[in-house]
Amino acid sequence: VLTSGLAVSPGAAVGRVVLSADDAVAQASTGDVILVTTETSPDDLHGIIAACGLLTSRGGLVSHAAIVARGMGKPAVCGAAAIEVDVEGGVLRVGDVTVRAGAVISIDGTTGDVVVGAVPVTVATEPPELDVLLGWADELRQLEVRANADTPQDAARARAAGAGGIGLCRTEHQFLGDRLPLIRRVILADGSASNAAALAELHAVQVADFTGILEAMDGLPVTIRLLDPPLHEFLPDVGELAVADAAGELDDDRRAMLQLARQWAEHNPMLGIRGVRLGLLRPDIYRTQVRALAEAAAARLEAGGDPRVEVMIPLVSISAELADVLADVREVFDEVSAASGISIPWLAGTMIETPRAALVANELAELAQFISFGTNDLTQMTYGLSRDDVESALMPTYELRGILDADPFATVDTIGVGELMRLAIESARETRPDVEVGVCGEHGGDPDSIAFFARLGIDYVSCSPARIRTARLAAAHAALGEQVTDASR
Amino acid sequence: VLTSGLAVSPGAAVGRVVLSADDAVAQASTGDVILVTTETSPDDLHGIIAACGLLTSRGGLVSHAAIVARGMGKPAVCGAAAIEVDVEGGVLRVGDVTVRAGAVISIDGTTGDVVVGAVPVTVATEPPELDVLLGWADELRQLEVRANADTPQDAARARAAGAGGIGLCRTEHQFLGDRLPLIRRVILADGSASNAAALAELHAVQVADFTGILEAMDGLPVTIRLLDPPLHEFLPDVGELAVADAAGELDDDRRAMLQLARQWAEHNPMLGIRGVRLGLLRPDIYRTQVRALAEAAAARLEAGGDPRVEVMIPLVSISAELADVLADVREVFDEVSAASGISIPWLAGTMIETPRAALVANELAELAQFISFGTNDLTQMTYGLSRDDVESALMPTYELRGILDADPFATVDTIGVGELMRLAIESARETRPDVEVGVCGEHGGDPDSIAFFARLGIDYVSCSPARIRTARLAAAHAALGEQVTDASR
Repeated sequence: VLTSGLAVSPGAAVGRVVLSADDAVAQASTGDVILVTTETSPDDLHGIIAACGLLTSRGGLVSHAAIVARGMGKPAVCGAAAIEVDVEGGVLRVGDVTVRAGAVISIDGTTGDVVVGAVPVTVATEPPELDVLLGWADELRQLEVRANADTPQDAARARAAGAGGIGLCRTEHQFLGDRLPLIRRVILADGSASNAAALAELHAVQVADFTGILEAMDGLPVTIRLLDPPLHEFLPDVGELAVADAAGELDDDRRAMLQLARQWAEHNPMLGIRGVRLGLLRPDIYRTQVRALAEAAAARLEAGGDPRVEVMIPLVSISAELADVLADVREVFDEVSAASGISIPWLAGTMIETPRAALVANELAELAQFISFGTNDLTQMTYGLSRDDVESALMPTYELRGILDADPFATVDTIGVGELMRLAIESARETRPDVEVGVCGEHGGDPDSIAFFARLGIDYVSCSPARIRTARLAAAHAALGEQVTDASR
Repeated sequence: VLTSGLAVSPGAAVGRVVLSADDAVAQASTGDVILVTTETSPDDLHGIIAACGLLTSRGGLVSHAAIVARGMGKPAVCGAAAIEVDVEGGVLRVGDVTVRAGAVISIDGTTGDVVVGAVPVTVATEPPELDVLLGWADELRQLEVRANADTPQDAARARAAGAGGIGLCRTEHQFLGDRLPLIRRVILADGSASNAAALAELHAVQVADFTGILEAMDGLPVTIRLLDPPLHEFLPDVGELAVADAAGELDDDRRAMLQLARQWAEHNPMLGIRGVRLGLLRPDIYRTQVRALAEAAAARLEAGGDPRVEVMIPLVSISAELADVLADVREVFDEVSAASGISIPWLAGTMIETPRAALVANELAELAQFISFGTNDLTQMTYGLSRDDVESALMPTYELRGILDADPFATVDTIGVGELMRLAIESARETRPDVEVGVCGEHGGDPDSIAFFARLGIDYVSCSPARIRTARLAAAHAALGEQVTDASR
């Protein structure tokens, strides 16, 4: 074993080391490769798709690499801090050991181990008993289990694993990889002409996206979250462009891009123009997404389908934000209904991601038919801790010194975050007794967290397709635990 | 009137336009100058000191420029977004109007107006009636008013304005300007030798700082907050260094600096390694500060003084963080007491800046004799909004559309942030009925916020020296308001 990192996406992979996304694509055709980088960004998506496993020296359980790997069901080890990736030298180093690009390594996404050479692997198969067991679990559990799925393929895979719908479709994830330039054009559009062209393209691709997802999940709820890009993940890197500019390497287009990227650059993107804030500054983007969604639903209805659309507004902290955006959403649905002559049913909802949203849940429930806790962000903001920045440096120190029993980004903090959730559910149900309550953060697939959510009385959890079966079982455990508690009273 | 911005620091200034801190220093000797920039950073402090007024195109009420200007009592207008600062061209532009560097402008920090040319100004004097009025206010008010003061000069000014102590001494502010290289060396120290040298220097300057402050506030409480640097404000700019590196302009020292700055660089510094987190990763820094403080207090006691030391730990979100750091603080005080033979009284306390700290205030109050709400950060994290990023782009849109009635960074949000404060005070007093409760954010000087804090039952507010008199009056208004309410029952 060369070193260990965080086990962020289960399964084992064996392959040759490649040190860039482009190399992964170039070399994958001649055999399996493992992409080894410091960390990944949406720009690396083609390489992640090409690789059979991911290994990063930075980042934690909810880093970009980890979330994308889990979403794809690919083995991954992240935050293996002992690894130094030397792209120019074409090697990775761990202490005195050097491994060249092209050499074979093995990674174990269940233990976090990184091994030099090829370790024999077997393909896991699901025994038929698993379906019997999960059938029993489904009979017992009170919690519905939905999937976080962003594409028709994810949706189909989630449905096969027993998901009862989509609890979170992150529309910004539909623009990773080769569609990244489009979403950049949409966000950076500065004049009406380029704006209109970018929005028209956005509309066209979204109609196709939504049609495919609604078809794959026909008859089951599909929660579409309107665009919520942390700008720094979607805009070009100002630092890189500035260096290229200083070296005189930028053409006019890229220099204009640098100018716009500077204008939108944020000191703290996680606390910046995200979600509903972008939606209010640029109402054209949300209106375009909603029009595509309404048209896709109308077409599905016309074709005899049963689309169950739930529209979710992200990053709300003030009830007036939600009211303003929902007025627009309603108007667009009404327009499409009028134009098509088809009545399109839909539900309005919001995420509870900021502490303030939890504290004003009574106001939000006047406007929203469902609320869904985004526990990643809620944890981040309740602690005032950015998962990107602290998981590698601070968390290990805190766990070592016993300051934290567990990583709160993996298992929900029942005392702080949990108390905000309890207050929010209580006040939301006072306003609207039948408000639907979900959880769609990474915690939605964690058994310990699921047990806590069941006690809070939520209606459903939503997790990545790979964790659906785990969540079904954990929900049954939670229900059994409650019965035992009741019986012992 | 050329344009308007946010009125962030009251008073009027007339002077020649300078576009950089260095120019301000160079030209201030030949007459008043007004520093006009996009925004300011600690690197600009010498220019801010030299200028008679500040004008920025970005940033809001709690931007670096605004806080420093208020601290110095200098007129400032920030976030005048219509202004384009063209440093290379040596001009500033507002639409079609161009003002050259060297031209005279006037700014009004009470209205936010920016005027071309010299507007006649008068020096405000305080009529003797003011002291009579404030004397009446002091008899009525229930709230103690303390000052945010970081230097002996600030402390003396605050005491003259009627402050009953220091509620917040931000030790990181003691390292702005020409001491910035020292604090950089302390934070970036990577080996024991350079580390020890930097810490020795830190110790020496802090003994002098604390001695001066304790002397100026003899007999009154002095709350010393241990180092809480948002790293991005204190470390060199990675982008600038990278551009210089690409141009081959860095020597070995500055290249090493770039390497270290990259290592510490954060995606979201406001949610990164701040306050107690740095204190726990680098216990040597806090131990050095506390040793300096204890020695300064011992020396004051020996000289017959009456130092009233309160040690405050910033950015706590987990009670074990506070327990760990306070154990160290206690150990150092005991060591200094033993070595000097002088018993040094001190109080242990913490800030409530993260939503989670508010939610676990009962646990914190077991360890802390006082708690102080840092309402700037608490607002930021409760909304999930970075004040640096949203004040110029988002806030004006939100106020225009009626989504926000008031800027929550100026007047406290009673519904969300206020509810967290109420919950925290209630649970802290359950654990420790005599826990001292303060507020030391910018809201501590805002009359509307003070009225709300009085209703919450806090013990004191702490604000910048320039707002002490306002706060004394507002606290009396709040007490009168309560009496009227009581009488009408």
